[in-house]
Amino acid sequence: MKKNIPYRIQLSQEQVPSQWYNLRADMPVSHDPYLHPGTLKPLVAEDLYPIFCKKLVEQELDETTRFFDIPDEVREIYKVYRPAPLCRAYNLEKKLGTPARIYYKYEGNNTSGSHKLNSAVAQAYYAKEQGLKGLTTETGAGQWGTALAEACNYFDLPLIVYMVKVSSEQKPYRKAVMETFNASVVPSPSETTDIGKKILAENPGTGGSLGCAISEAIETAAKTEGYRYVLGSVMNQVLLHQSIIGLEAYEALEMVDEYPDIVIGCAGGGSNLGGLIAPFMRDKLTGKANPRIVAVEPASCPSFTRGKFAYDFCDTGKVTPFAKMYTVGGGFIPSPSHAGGLRFHGMSPVLSKLYHDGHMEAVAREQSKVFEAAVQFAKYETILPAPESAHAIYEAMEEAKRCKETGEEKVILFGLSGTGYFDMSAYMSYKNGTMTDFIPTDEDLERSFATLPKVQ
Amino acid sequence: MKKNIPYRIQLSQEQVPSQWYNLRADMPVSHDPYLHPGTLKPLVAEDLYPIFCKKLVEQELDETTRFFDIPDEVREIYKVYRPAPLCRAYNLEKKLGTPARIYYKYEGNNTSGSHKLNSAVAQAYYAKEQGLKGLTTETGAGQWGTALAEACNYFDLPLIVYMVKVSSEQKPYRKAVMETFNASVVPSPSETTDIGKKILAENPGTGGSLGCAISEAIETAAKTEGYRYVLGSVMNQVLLHQSIIGLEAYEALEMVDEYPDIVIGCAGGGSNLGGLIAPFMRDKLTGKANPRIVAVEPASCPSFTRGKFAYDFCDTGKVTPFAKMYTVGGGFIPSPSHAGGLRFHGMSPVLSKLYHDGHMEAVAREQSKVFEAAVQFAKYETILPAPESAHAIYEAMEEAKRCKETGEEKVILFGLSGTGYFDMSAYMSYKNGTMTDFIPTDEDLERSFATLPKVQ
Repeated sequence: MKKNIPYRIQLSQEQVPSQWYNLRADMPVSHDPYLHPGTLKPLVAEDLYPIFCKKLVEQELDETTRFFDIPDEVREIYKVYRPAPLCRAYNLEKKLGTPARIYYKYEGNNTSGSHKLNSAVAQAYYAKEQGLKGLTTETGAGQWGTALAEACNYFDLPLIVYMVKVSSEQKPYRKAVMETFNASVVPSPSETTDIGKKILAENPGTGGSLGCAISEAIETAAKTEGYRYVLGSVMNQVLLHQSIIGLEAYEALEMVDEYPDIVIGCAGGGSNLGGLIAPFMRDKLTGKANPRIVAVEPASCPSFTRGKFAYDFCDTGKVTPFAKMYTVGGGFIPSPSHAGGLRFHGMSPVLSKLYHDGHMEAVAREQSKVFEAAVQFAKYETILPAPESAHAIYEAMEEAKRCKETGEEKVILFGLSGTGYFDMSAYMSYKNGTMTDFIPTDEDLERSFATLPKVQ
Repeated sequence: MKKNIPYRIQLSQEQVPSQWYNLRADMPVSHDPYLHPGTLKPLVAEDLYPIFCKKLVEQELDETTRFFDIPDEVREIYKVYRPAPLCRAYNLEKKLGTPARIYYKYEGNNTSGSHKLNSAVAQAYYAKEQGLKGLTTETGAGQWGTALAEACNYFDLPLIVYMVKVSSEQKPYRKAVMETFNASVVPSPSETTDIGKKILAENPGTGGSLGCAISEAIETAAKTEGYRYVLGSVMNQVLLHQSIIGLEAYEALEMVDEYPDIVIGCAGGGSNLGGLIAPFMRDKLTGKANPRIVAVEPASCPSFTRGKFAYDFCDTGKVTPFAKMYTVGGGFIPSPSHAGGLRFHGMSPVLSKLYHDGHMEAVAREQSKVFEAAVQFAKYETILPAPESAHAIYEAMEEAKRCKETGEEKVILFGLSGTGYFDMSAYMSYKNGTMTDFIPTDEDLERSFATLPKVQ
């Protein structure tokens, strides 16, 4: 039994990592290359420069550089809200009566309320450094848009956010936060883009989707001088920046002489999961250790567990490169009953490859159970989690309960990627019993698989 | 020029104070006693037992015990979210071009989003220890209600919150958070109490007031077996618990060899201000140091700066004891344009006495300027502040600008008591230019002074 481990293992400011870790450098086999949607040839940097910041393109395509220096300007902002604490869930352990030791890396202690700020700061910085005039992006539940608005405001960089329409209606205050940070928020689909107009003409009542918002953001970036597009998940550059989550967690655990038997993260596009697991996956790939690594996705959008490992577009408008990933098909739109994020049809190519090659596990969970876990966690750990993060909480609690049965003193680490302050309507529907679960049928998935491009 | 001071001066868990500090023990002259509203004689403990928890009554009336041990059960919860960081506002300093060194004690890093949790945990614990069946309270902007809901939920203690009706309508998500933590939230005035019915009969369209909500909460506690009433500001017990803010700030500043020239806190009932300043005021009263101590209140509810130092009721129903305090009169209701908390008509008797005796200063500020400061602060320090806290931010920035003019390297400490996540409608009205300022006229104040009881 470990003694004297504090509730919060707090690194010092000097321990904020000075480099991001690029997991791809340690992958035995790299993920399949992005393909140009026109030529079907592997993408080269030049293909991406018109859309993305130059530096981010370099990071995106770099498979060999193991560590990237974090620019001073970025690290200075990290120091305002980092290191983020690694918390020992003593109260939850006690309540569950488990011999397991549960740790969570808490990324909600910044105004954006989630880990998304880690990549937003980096991306806004590189855009500013490149002399860009502004950025565009999309946001679903709003975490990414909020984080990027905060980061762009810091660097005085104009930002246009395409927000999935149903989210912007359900979450007026998310919109308000972004506007407070001087972002322009456009509900998507909108009349401001060709693809938006097309989708509205075909389906006037649509609540939008992340794939559609991505298309609109890219179109606007492409046609506005000095603008580029940035995004908050799925891509390698994002996982690179988010590695700071895992690096800090790793160091904090080392400080108390612990190593996780299980690392658990929620999975949507993979930004939080990929960041959290990075150094632990490294140990696994290099044979240094063998932790179980578990992705938890919503049963309503089950890319890992029920998707296909295939080339697909990242957006509805089909302007993005093809990425080989686990996907439920670009035509998939999660049920309106789906709360929170984790609603993207695809999954990070890096994580998809690692999953495909058997280096990690994945499970899909229904949201009513996830919210039940969230409310219990909030009661004992005094943090109201984001619905996204609650997927990891649920699974961590299940693992801890299994330890109670077996008597195993496992060390469980999970990512508490954000807070639920802006998800109160979902919590209300859970409390008043109107929350429903949605699990796509096999027929639903077959229909959306039919939208996959024929480039496999 | 001080070197190498980190952005966040983080105490270790062992440095979470083990005792609260009772400022009254060091006051040269105590505040005038509470008076029994029937007999007009100084209150004794027995008068309060039917309404308040026994232990809290003892703390309320104790003028001599300098330090109170924090119960282990309370300290265990403190450790989940404390020590709260003391932050150096480097980015803000740079933007202002000031030679001043600005520090803020940040109390928003817990789900309740404010310092209110510090007293809520203590009060819920003592109620549980006494074997009570439940608690009642009131909340205005919602910070206190949220914190107490969180604390009561932790101890499995039922809670009824009377929430000022206009707030419950403006902030449905505040209500939702409290309900997520299992509190019953009743918009006040309500039909559940005699006083509520009376007020509704007299003024059916009223949006309620804190004074009215207090009356309803007390009435319900008095007539429900095993229930007591608790409150989140004004009273001595609350300032005692909140001294943890100041004690931690004091210790953190000592660690970097700093001492504030000016300590600034927003002031409503005084819970945050009284807690923050406690150890600095002690130095002042004992002659050890002489920092300026500045209360910042809203111009729309100016108890310190335009109120009378007089005995007054704390509630509209006139069931509470008389307290000698700065008050704009129990009949005063802030304009509906007033955003956030700091809307109580009176002020902590301890702080009132200290102000009256010249130990501290007070200023009143208009909210449009306060929100301007809030948005600037959010931009550079990446934290979206509560409107309440933004009063202190505004004043700290003004002081820092004066330092720029004079070249003085003053050390400024202010309390960042909470976050603005649930105040987005106010931020929206600021952003879209519909926010208005309200300053009561002398006639307005004369009318509310006329509601003062004749017991001076």
